[in-house]
Amino acid sequence: MIAYCARHNINVQASASKPYSMDRNLLHISYEAGVLEDPWFDAFAPGNKDMFRLTCAPEAAPDRSQIVTLEFLRGDCVAVDGRPMNPLQVMRTLNRVAGRHGVGRVDMVENRYVGMKSRGVYETPGGTLLHFAHRQMESLTMDREAMHLRDSLIPRYAAMVYNGFWFAPERYALQALVEETQKNVTGTVRVRLYKGGLYVAGRKSPLSLYNPQIATMDADPTQAYNQDDATGFIHLNALRLKVAAHVHTQKNKTKKQK
Amino acid sequence: MIAYCARHNINVQASASKPYSMDRNLLHISYEAGVLEDPWFDAFAPGNKDMFRLTCAPEAAPDRSQIVTLEFLRGDCVAVDGRPMNPLQVMRTLNRVAGRHGVGRVDMVENRYVGMKSRGVYETPGGTLLHFAHRQMESLTMDREAMHLRDSLIPRYAAMVYNGFWFAPERYALQALVEETQKNVTGTVRVRLYKGGLYVAGRKSPLSLYNPQIATMDADPTQAYNQDDATGFIHLNALRLKVAAHVHTQKNKTKKQK
Amino acid sequence: MIAYCARHNINVQASASKPYSMDRNLLHISYEAGVLEDPWFDAFAPGNKDMFRLTCAPEAAPDRSQIVTLEFLRGDCVAVDGRPMNPLQVMRTLNRVAGRHGVGRVDMVENRYVGMKSRGVYETPGGTLLHFAHRQMESLTMDREAMHLRDSLIPRYAAMVYNGFWFAPERYALQALVEETQKNVTGTVRVRLYKGGLYVAGRKSPLSLYNPQIATMDADPTQAYNQDDATGFIHLNALRLKVAAHVHTQKNKTKKQK
Amino acid sequence: MIAYCARHNINVQASASKPYSMDRNLLHISYEAGVLEDPWFDAFAPGNKDMFRLTCAPEAAPDRSQIVTLEFLRGDCVAVDGRPMNPLQVMRTLNRVAGRHGVGRVDMVENRYVGMKSRGVYETPGGTLLHFAHRQMESLTMDREAMHLRDSLIPRYAAMVYNGFWFAPERYALQALVEETQKNVTGTVRVRLYKGGLYVAGRKSPLSLYNPQIATMDADPTQAYNQDDATGFIHLNALRLKVAAHVHTQKNKTKKQK
Repeated sequence: MIAYCARHNINVQASASKPYSMDRNLLHISYEAGVLEDPWFDAFAPGNKDMFRLTCAPEAAPDRSQIVTLEFLRGDCVAVDGRPMNPLQVMRTLNRVAGRHGVGRVDMVENRYVGMKSRGVYETPGGTLLHFAHRQMESLTMDREAMHLRDSLIPRYAAMVYNGFWFAPERYALQALVEETQKNVTGTVRVRLYKGGLYVAGRKSPLSLYNPQIATMDADPTQAYNQDDATGFIHLNALRLKVAAHVHTQKNKTKKQK
Repeated sequence: MIAYCARHNINVQASASKPYSMDRNLLHISYEAGVLEDPWFDAFAPGNKDMFRLTCAPEAAPDRSQIVTLEFLRGDCVAVDGRPMNPLQVMRTLNRVAGRHGVGRVDMVENRYVGMKSRGVYETPGGTLLHFAHRQMESLTMDREAMHLRDSLIPRYAAMVYNGFWFAPERYALQALVEETQKNVTGTVRVRLYKGGLYVAGRKSPLSLYNPQIATMDADPTQAYNQDDATGFIHLNALRLKVAAHVHTQKNKTKKQK
Repeated sequence: MIAYCARHNINVQASASKPYSMDRNLLHISYEAGVLEDPWFDAFAPGNKDMFRLTCAPEAAPDRSQIVTLEFLRGDCVAVDGRPMNPLQVMRTLNRVAGRHGVGRVDMVENRYVGMKSRGVYETPGGTLLHFAHRQMESLTMDREAMHLRDSLIPRYAAMVYNGFWFAPERYALQALVEETQKNVTGTVRVRLYKGGLYVAGRKSPLSLYNPQIATMDADPTQAYNQDDATGFIHLNALRLKVAAHVHTQKNKTKKQK
Repeated sequence: MIAYCARHNINVQASASKPYSMDRNLLHISYEAGVLEDPWFDAFAPGNKDMFRLTCAPEAAPDRSQIVTLEFLRGDCVAVDGRPMNPLQVMRTLNRVAGRHGVGRVDMVENRYVGMKSRGVYETPGGTLLHFAHRQMESLTMDREAMHLRDSLIPRYAAMVYNGFWFAPERYALQALVEETQKNVTGTVRVRLYKGGLYVAGRKSPLSLYNPQIATMDADPTQAYNQDDATGFIHLNALRLKVAAHVHTQKNKTKKQK
């Protein structure tokens, strides 16, 4: 196919030396086909390093780590390192910073909607950093049960997006749930970038649900947590298990006597 | 409390210079309390590096990456770098290798069962590597729908384990589902470890569900995928959306005419 | 306890002749304890008929069925038998009509939040009728995937309500999803009530997503459904299963040859 | 089409007087198309009573109720009214008994896999009775959390079956979960059938998890439930809500002062 295109002056990015396809948007570049078809092929090997456009290799990243600060307002990143930004500026800034540190390379065997597995290699530098920081912001400000509920629906949401059902009623329904959970996801996250990796370096929020005085059971003026409460909590959460153990043990005893 | 313990010769690991608690088992060490109570405190900062026991800092990891090969049989890792191992040997080996490369440090604000948020720092070197490789093995050998179903239940499974419901009937029920999905998770995964990061360097399996000939739509002797099929597939998957768009557009037109 | 209360002039509804407890609100009456403690006891037996307040026994209901018409606007019932009503009037009207026909008696062994099973008998005449009609209205106007998504979350929603978490963030999140799914649940449902049973007698809606011309594959001027599309739809939905069957069959053949 | 078939001696069950299609198996008959295409058409009206084959109309059912007893062993019905039966005998017996009492007629607008809504009328007498009794058996013997988990997956299981994915890996995975939950679903259920309705008349089991002594908080020799435990249970389950209320109230106060 590459030879045919060359012969007929059809301009394609794939070439005999870079024999794969490439799709690019603000969020990522995906690479597929060609040498990547073999899932045993090491896409991150030094010999394949020319494929990547948005990220350097972790090995080629700076030897000094960098800390980036993201500010969130109701779930959205609205400032980076103190500078307020619109969403486009956020993505461009995070792509540049994360790409410089080799962050966001992914190699996966994925499941296409049409029913086949496919091997894809991705660069998503800014998206990886944004997702990481957003999760940290949620961990401080989002209620446990709301988070577990939302998390159980992530595979479903991801499948909707991947399969192209953005404008489908089930996506709107799920979006309404997600947005309700983001109302208090407000605050600041610091992230350290180093050689392809992301490490949280701190998070804070005026709406933080984390109260060290409660968590450490030290002198808490609000006395929100009383250790004695744990007794009843444990007893009642275990009650159904104790009853079942009793019933099933009795049953087995009766069997043996026969 | 630390002073009281010192005065009464009570031996505790927490000290004025390492003012946090520590819990250790085969899978991980967790650190909590003390200086870690402030979620803005940078647990991975150089000044805190003496806290960690199982991993070096990514900055202190070797400058050369290392590739480790894990073999899986029905979901379980049974060999590392060609050497057959029992589960205990697997965990010890992976802890050592991953720890040497600074892999598996996590800093999180978590949600305790008793209802409070809590900040914990973890070292889970071997577990992080095992989980990463296992996911890669699954991506090649596990059916899409089985995987999505299982994935939607992971938050529930994790909550059971975290909250101590290992011996509860809901855990046994979910375990039965999980085990059924692992029957064909067999094969080999190569992972590159570098400065705290994990990168897949290849996966293969005698039970691979990935067929490059189908995925690339090139000459496939089995002719499993016919591009013409996409037409009907798209039409019927879109049918409910088209009908709804038609109905709701008609409705809005009628409204406007009034 | 009953004797003690009598002796001290404490007025309680439980008595030696009606030895159970009773809780009543607009939606239902629940009966528990006393003779009901034995789950083998037949709560609907003629001998126990004096217990019920909101419903007659199905056997005592009129010999002629009655048809009730409910109108829905965005998920809410706003009129009964042509008369516009506020929610309170709806509940009172439906309680009266359904109660007269013996609709809404339920006897169940339920699971209390504190960990024990408990036997409860309920009368919920209006709620049973409203729920039945609402489901019918949804079946005509709600998208399939939105409905399946919502349905998968019903046990979770019910547990929140049953356990008293109405004002919890996870309930608000789920409510947002539910409300998004109700936007087009508008139209009219006829229900036949007869001797304790409910039978739909018709549903219609200006926003109906049901198009008989498409469903019967007869002459459809919009040509929304082309039977030829089924070929590609079936092929691609079966593709992952065919690939897996091929792989696993080959594997088994290889095994046998050895 | 009917005229064409008559002219060419093609024997079809649809006729000008019964203009609908019919599919029958051991579990049910489904009716579709023809006069049923109009979802406002009353399929259960006296004028349409000749359509049905497996059930009489509730109005035509006996004036005296009948009680049927089903015995379950690990989730399966193994005896009816004291007579041991294989699954085929169970279905035939329950079809006959339930059909005689007008049980199991359903009229629904359903969602076909190919993307359209469709109106179907069903007779499922034995299946309706079996499902009702099985649920009652579960309520006495199945753990709460296992039941809630299983229930949340029912829409998914139903979609698999409806869409024809019985032999798909996701169905096997879910089946494994379901079977694990049925291990203790053993015992006896009595059901009253009357004029189209089903009413439980008692359930009992050697593996019952319901213990009246615990539920009523009366003298329980095992002292499984201590009312004082409720205090801690309530406190800790409410802790996350209290902390959030405190944080969000403080925030609003601060806002107002500005």
